[in-house]
Amino acid sequence: MVKLNHLAIVVNDVDSALSFWRDALGLQVRHAERNEREEVDLAFMPAGDSDIELISPINETSGVAKFLAKHGPGMHHLCVEVDDIVATMQRLKEHKVMLLNDTPKVNEEGTKYCFIHPKSAYGVMVELYEKAKK
Amino acid sequence: MVKLNHLAIVVNDVDSALSFWRDALGLQVRHAERNEREEVDLAFMPAGDSDIELISPINETSGVAKFLAKHGPGMHHLCVEVDDIVATMQRLKEHKVMLLNDTPKVNEEGTKYCFIHPKSAYGVMVELYEKAKK
Repeated sequence: MVKLNHLAIVVNDVDSALSFWRDALGLQVRHAERNEREEVDLAFMPAGDSDIELISPINETSGVAKFLAKHGPGMHHLCVEVDDIVATMQRLKEHKVMLLNDTPKVNEEGTKYCFIHPKSAYGVMVELYEKAKK
Repeated sequence: MVKLNHLAIVVNDVDSALSFWRDALGLQVRHAERNEREEVDLAFMPAGDSDIELISPINETSGVAKFLAKHGPGMHHLCVEVDDIVATMQRLKEHKVMLLNDTPKVNEEGTKYCFIHPKSAYGVMVELYEKAKK
């Protein structure tokens, strides 16, 4: 199983961008927060089986702020969910795919994740996710 | 209902990019074709409920070729599926959202579609889809 978990979009300001995604287009916000650790505001909007995630920087020094200064607002990365991230990472390495971390990182919810280098993914920043078993 | 139908990625060459998306990451190709009218090669890969679509130009004059020359490979547009595209377009217009066409276009399968101007969608090219009723 490989499924699109979410698509992340960088904007200048999450609240302003919601005027399009929520108010005009009609998506619902499932979860929104200021994440001080990542130095961003976030909003997750279910769009069928996948989420659209809005991200905006809360200072001028974060990675997201630098992306925004360089590229302007737009799609940032896509996240695909897999059953077994370690096996997937192993297979990717066998195919000479460059990973940004050698072993999975783990977030507060227990989700394991890893980023693939955009050069290996033909121009796209791809995140891998393996959700915590419940 | 607003769901993510597909995410379109522009690459230099669909076959080469499949070495990552299909061979390394493990997605399956549901449909691939050379579309002479759009002047592109296409491959659709289901990723859960949504598709990832790879697009590459087959000449140097198409819109996709110009996008590639200007931006390099990467994510191009996202397509959201709605129940009633005319009602959605009407609501978007009431919210001052700019549409690239005033009435829906229709493709060979009977799918109605319309593009939203990236300026109105905070930096993202968004396509709307209403699938043909069966």
